[in-house]
Amino acid sequence: MPYRIVFLGTSAGMPTLNRNLPGILLEWDSDLILFDCGEGIQLRFMEYGIGAGRPLRIFVSHMHGDHVLGLPGLLQTFSLLDRKTPVEVYGPSKLEEYIHCIRSTIGLNPTYDLKIFRVDDGRCYDFESYRILCRRVQHGSESYGYRFEEKDRPGVFYTDKAIALGIPRGPLWKRLQLGESIKLDDGRIIEPKDVLGPPRRGFKLAYTGDTIPCRAVEELAEGADILIHEATFTEDLASKATVEGHTTAAQAAYIASRSSVKLLVLTHISARYVTVDALVDEAKRIYSNVVVAEDGLTIELRRMGEEYEYRVVPRI
Amino acid sequence: MPYRIVFLGTSAGMPTLNRNLPGILLEWDSDLILFDCGEGIQLRFMEYGIGAGRPLRIFVSHMHGDHVLGLPGLLQTFSLLDRKTPVEVYGPSKLEEYIHCIRSTIGLNPTYDLKIFRVDDGRCYDFESYRILCRRVQHGSESYGYRFEEKDRPGVFYTDKAIALGIPRGPLWKRLQLGESIKLDDGRIIEPKDVLGPPRRGFKLAYTGDTIPCRAVEELAEGADILIHEATFTEDLASKATVEGHTTAAQAAYIASRSSVKLLVLTHISARYVTVDALVDEAKRIYSNVVVAEDGLTIELRRMGEEYEYRVVPRI
Repeated sequence: MPYRIVFLGTSAGMPTLNRNLPGILLEWDSDLILFDCGEGIQLRFMEYGIGAGRPLRIFVSHMHGDHVLGLPGLLQTFSLLDRKTPVEVYGPSKLEEYIHCIRSTIGLNPTYDLKIFRVDDGRCYDFESYRILCRRVQHGSESYGYRFEEKDRPGVFYTDKAIALGIPRGPLWKRLQLGESIKLDDGRIIEPKDVLGPPRRGFKLAYTGDTIPCRAVEELAEGADILIHEATFTEDLASKATVEGHTTAAQAAYIASRSSVKLLVLTHISARYVTVDALVDEAKRIYSNVVVAEDGLTIELRRMGEEYEYRVVPRI
Repeated sequence: MPYRIVFLGTSAGMPTLNRNLPGILLEWDSDLILFDCGEGIQLRFMEYGIGAGRPLRIFVSHMHGDHVLGLPGLLQTFSLLDRKTPVEVYGPSKLEEYIHCIRSTIGLNPTYDLKIFRVDDGRCYDFESYRILCRRVQHGSESYGYRFEEKDRPGVFYTDKAIALGIPRGPLWKRLQLGESIKLDDGRIIEPKDVLGPPRRGFKLAYTGDTIPCRAVEELAEGADILIHEATFTEDLASKATVEGHTTAAQAAYIASRSSVKLLVLTHISARYVTVDALVDEAKRIYSNVVVAEDGLTIELRRMGEEYEYRVVPRI
């Protein structure tokens, strides 16, 4: 299964002929993690061939329509397809009321277990191979940014070292791989570090949702491989951005530079920008490794030794 | 301004890569009348260049998600565009609760007057140049079909006849055009029929929403120029159609043949039909003047003498 990020929608507020409403999908092995679900996301699942039965967790940044109005249709279409795998939806306090009233007026009738979770500032959800941290950001009454963290894994097991040390293949190898020290029959103690490379650092991704530049975002982004930051406006509209609770491309670049991320992806682009040159230009002056997302942009992830490599693939 | 019908979405239940969720737009001079508003309709407005500030009445057939989930996004985008013209939305009893809960959880914040009307079986809404009749149809708990009727207009005023009869140009002509008899100075009584052609019959359009074949639809369709009938399935799935509250193409054709409509348009096509040949074939055996709608299909309307002519224009 792939490890990749797919930008399903990259507009702000309203769709344009080129940009759909927000939705960013992280495919993590068999799991799907969807950040926000604007109107039309169910159609993007079809367009991009995303399996409708795969395990899915949806993290909603905030309750503005452009970020959540695709949720009912997606959940309903899953029912029409007779989905059985549970769906988990995480979001602000109003999320449950929203889903409840949709169910009572439209009747979603889920054929699967639909679980709603209310997130809080600082809460961390722990899953098998990753965790997701929620931080309150500054936009409207209740908005969250998220950090996806793959759990660190033990380092590479060097079989040649194990053989050279005379450790018999089998359960002892397994214990060393799990980080335990072992004692051989001849009395020697073998430490994991004797046969393992350095721990393999997990992949880290931060997503801001909508926000003005804020400390919580810097914390979410600290040391992340990729920071997906909203950049609704350019610097000439900095005041408008602040008043409306948004970030400029330059401000996002500044956050990226302070947070030691490897790649900054700007998204949530105002409909006023027919081309993204102005956004790219002002961001690059502050932080060079930046791309402005477009619908269909895919970032393929591949572990190479201790680190992840990524490859940015524009929509074909 | 144009007189035309534009099919913005023609799928059933869920979208496909070729068919969006239901929405049928009647452009009647400057007015827009939208029947149903599935997810994604706001984007269709952009794609087809439908002015976002034009007077708009939306008639919702029923509260299933595929027919109403585009409503919040459309209404919200109007606000982002600072619309000032009122929007009227007509539909079943749950419509008001639906809009209310969307407002309380998402916050539509309309910049215009948003009026919600609860329709009833047999109710007729009277507007300046047309009226819309609502009839309860048989699908789910509360579903409606609609009939648009342009009001009949007085016949053509034959100026040559008026001049030959020695009627002085001016107010007397106007009174005759409005259907009043007049008395000339020489004592002669002139009746409207002496100078007017036969009354010009108004355009009539029936739309079923979702339903099994039923008497109410026949009444809505009686003598209509165009009947837009749902045809979710073909005859081989007639039992499924009945159980799920839908109509087959053959059944819709039968209704059309009994109702003396001029053109039957089938819509709300199940995703299972990759081509529509089977639907067309079975309908044509019963009623020859039928087309299966596709997204973007447009029917241009033009008055020719006493009748309307229509021209079916596939999407370019």
